[in-house]
Amino acid sequence: MTDRSHLVILGGGFAGLTLARKLRRAPWRITLVDRRNHHLFQPLLYQVATAGLAPGDIAEPIRRVLAKNDNVTVRLGEAVRIDADKKEVHLSDGDVLEFERLVVATGVTHSHFGHDEWAEAAPGLKTIGDALEIRRRMLMAFERAEWEDDAEERRKLLTFVVVGAGPTGVELAGAIKEIALKTLRKEFRTIDPVRDARVLLVEAGPRVLAAYPDPLSDKALAQLQSLGVEVRLGEPVTAVDRDGVTIAGERVPAANVLWAAGVKASPLGQTLGVPLDRAGRVQVNPDLSVPDHPDIYVLGDLAHLEIDGRVLPGVAPVAIQQAEHLAKDLLKRRRTPFAYKDLGSMATIGHHRAIADLGFMKLSGYFAWLAWVFVHLMTLVGYRNRMVVFLKWAWAWFTFERSSRLVWQGESHEPWNQVPGEGGSGEVAAQGGRDVA
Amino acid sequence: MTDRSHLVILGGGFAGLTLARKLRRAPWRITLVDRRNHHLFQPLLYQVATAGLAPGDIAEPIRRVLAKNDNVTVRLGEAVRIDADKKEVHLSDGDVLEFERLVVATGVTHSHFGHDEWAEAAPGLKTIGDALEIRRRMLMAFERAEWEDDAEERRKLLTFVVVGAGPTGVELAGAIKEIALKTLRKEFRTIDPVRDARVLLVEAGPRVLAAYPDPLSDKALAQLQSLGVEVRLGEPVTAVDRDGVTIAGERVPAANVLWAAGVKASPLGQTLGVPLDRAGRVQVNPDLSVPDHPDIYVLGDLAHLEIDGRVLPGVAPVAIQQAEHLAKDLLKRRRTPFAYKDLGSMATIGHHRAIADLGFMKLSGYFAWLAWVFVHLMTLVGYRNRMVVFLKWAWAWFTFERSSRLVWQGESHEPWNQVPGEGGSGEVAAQGGRDVA
Repeated sequence: MTDRSHLVILGGGFAGLTLARKLRRAPWRITLVDRRNHHLFQPLLYQVATAGLAPGDIAEPIRRVLAKNDNVTVRLGEAVRIDADKKEVHLSDGDVLEFERLVVATGVTHSHFGHDEWAEAAPGLKTIGDALEIRRRMLMAFERAEWEDDAEERRKLLTFVVVGAGPTGVELAGAIKEIALKTLRKEFRTIDPVRDARVLLVEAGPRVLAAYPDPLSDKALAQLQSLGVEVRLGEPVTAVDRDGVTIAGERVPAANVLWAAGVKASPLGQTLGVPLDRAGRVQVNPDLSVPDHPDIYVLGDLAHLEIDGRVLPGVAPVAIQQAEHLAKDLLKRRRTPFAYKDLGSMATIGHHRAIADLGFMKLSGYFAWLAWVFVHLMTLVGYRNRMVVFLKWAWAWFTFERSSRLVWQGESHEPWNQVPGEGGSGEVAAQGGRDVA
Repeated sequence: MTDRSHLVILGGGFAGLTLARKLRRAPWRITLVDRRNHHLFQPLLYQVATAGLAPGDIAEPIRRVLAKNDNVTVRLGEAVRIDADKKEVHLSDGDVLEFERLVVATGVTHSHFGHDEWAEAAPGLKTIGDALEIRRRMLMAFERAEWEDDAEERRKLLTFVVVGAGPTGVELAGAIKEIALKTLRKEFRTIDPVRDARVLLVEAGPRVLAAYPDPLSDKALAQLQSLGVEVRLGEPVTAVDRDGVTIAGERVPAANVLWAAGVKASPLGQTLGVPLDRAGRVQVNPDLSVPDHPDIYVLGDLAHLEIDGRVLPGVAPVAIQQAEHLAKDLLKRRRTPFAYKDLGSMATIGHHRAIADLGFMKLSGYFAWLAWVFVHLMTLVGYRNRMVVFLKWAWAWFTFERSSRLVWQGESHEPWNQVPGEGGSGEVAAQGGRDVA
């Protein structure tokens, strides 16, 4: 095998990992490059952010998943540039990988609509690190409020604003409200989380879950409101800083702003030198290859593909189906157009509320929630994860406890004076009272 | 109630938390101050460091543990000074707590024998943050070795040196060797973890587990050696830096040095103005109060108490029994001397090896390991934790998998050029391929 029989996959998300697994019997050398050592089950990331699950429950080491794929080498590293003509991928550490075929599946990241300065005050939710930072801020806000004498400051600390009412925003808002209503209700002496915690869900568009059919979107709105979430529709956020947000001209003081409003494509797509859409996604051919470079493919969220006049959404099923399609084509040495089979979509709102659009059937409420639990458990990578997550959910169901409420990032010598966002310094001040030989 | 009927407890470790729980029916206002929001089950911390358990499995929010103790207010914050005469505790944020009675249980932290510059290269293990940093370094060493061309550099990356052969050192060394032998064995293509990973356990004294009876200490040594750990006894470490250690004059190149050799007392004890021992621990009266300040008590690892010519060891059972003793004395408004009931001690070495000294019986091997599992499960705070930890252990027992192998601290744009120890910057570079709506 020369280096030229080498398939390189960039990204170990749903698309990249599925492709590598499906090519187990391929007679090529394969290298999968990811910046992280783990595959992340992103649909449940909001549960890490809201203390329901631990990071390890929704992530699996890429190396372990591919342990039996002898033709795959896993490379922890970051691709920074693709030279499509020379057929080279340049990594941030200076290494260069030559390839015969390349699959780019590095996805998207959050976008603050050009306001990069908002990112610090309003973190988005894409990685384990993001989720832990959101969890830390949320739990610290309650801790600080408990000891804050000033009523106005206390109100600000207990105001949570979620920007963007897509699935992530709806799930975050519902979960935060529920933590206040159930999990923390008996644990504080000065504040009353049930009475004092205020959760706003702000959306510039006219509906929550805009990608869903109207009746489900209406149901989701009703469920959010019955939980006590204040939903503000048709009201764009025009300013964000550490002290709050401006919503359609109105200033709302809030110490906790979470961003769930927009995404932009991985910058790697730009280095391909091919046409991009407005969000920076690569416009791919029907067989998922890139114009003028038949040996370079783009999959998943980074790909822009229109089928029957509709751009495919950035969801896991699209990424997985594309990877399966490409694996078959590669193994059979053919090129066929990708077709998407829409299996429906779902979102949860709090403890046992959800909506589900299964195409042939629309559900809301308790049964939609059961369907959501079933689908998400079954698609988690790894049996161990499924078992642990199932037990944690069962436990939480009966007790309303949340199992992952630790704060360890942002430990500092002055927890109260600490500026949010400067946390997670990695420095850990040792604290005693716990030594056990 | 005036402020003067106020009992303040500093530290939510085994001593502080046990005391607060036992005083549930006390007619006083109680404030428990801790720098962290969680109680940590320190005896299992090495399992977080070695990827066997997740942080949430061995920690519990202090607030939740004390939710039903209506007389207790939990204060997240750090005490920096005690004014024993004025009966005041000063917190780092400037707040002052007045007390009638004070219990100091802030424990110990690791000590690099006056070589503070060693701390960066050789992290100790006292907090969740420490454990995650050790886990990150260990897993990253294997990742980097997989792509390192230079044989000498590769050898350095795969050399793990544990300094100090007390229970923590023995457990760490055994667990690291086992990860190489079992968990990672099939997952790499260039390196062979079984053949290439070298684990040294270095101890200046003549024995491993010096606090245990000779025969058990010998058994532990034999078990470590049969696992493949290189044990170096009677050889003090004289230098530590990023590239290795000097052991009794011999230079050993090693990218991973872990510190399990010494502890020093929490600096809070110094502010009491009472006699300290050489390690900075407070010399307490038989009733656990402090000389000349009958309303100030010191419990747990921070207390130095000699009974029958033997200084009590810094272990969880001592802290718990002292707290129970003091709670009884306080409730009955009496002062009695503390007596320690030694229930024995145990340590594990890898997958199913252990030693246990139960006083009336000494065990080693498989049955000692079963005893270890039983005792540690039963004493974990929280039923949910017990259930989850039991299942993870059962799973690991059959599969040798380790459930918590994520690396998310130290994410950077240049993972390979990254200097260990500069990780955990809290900045999380977004990475795509995983967006799911």
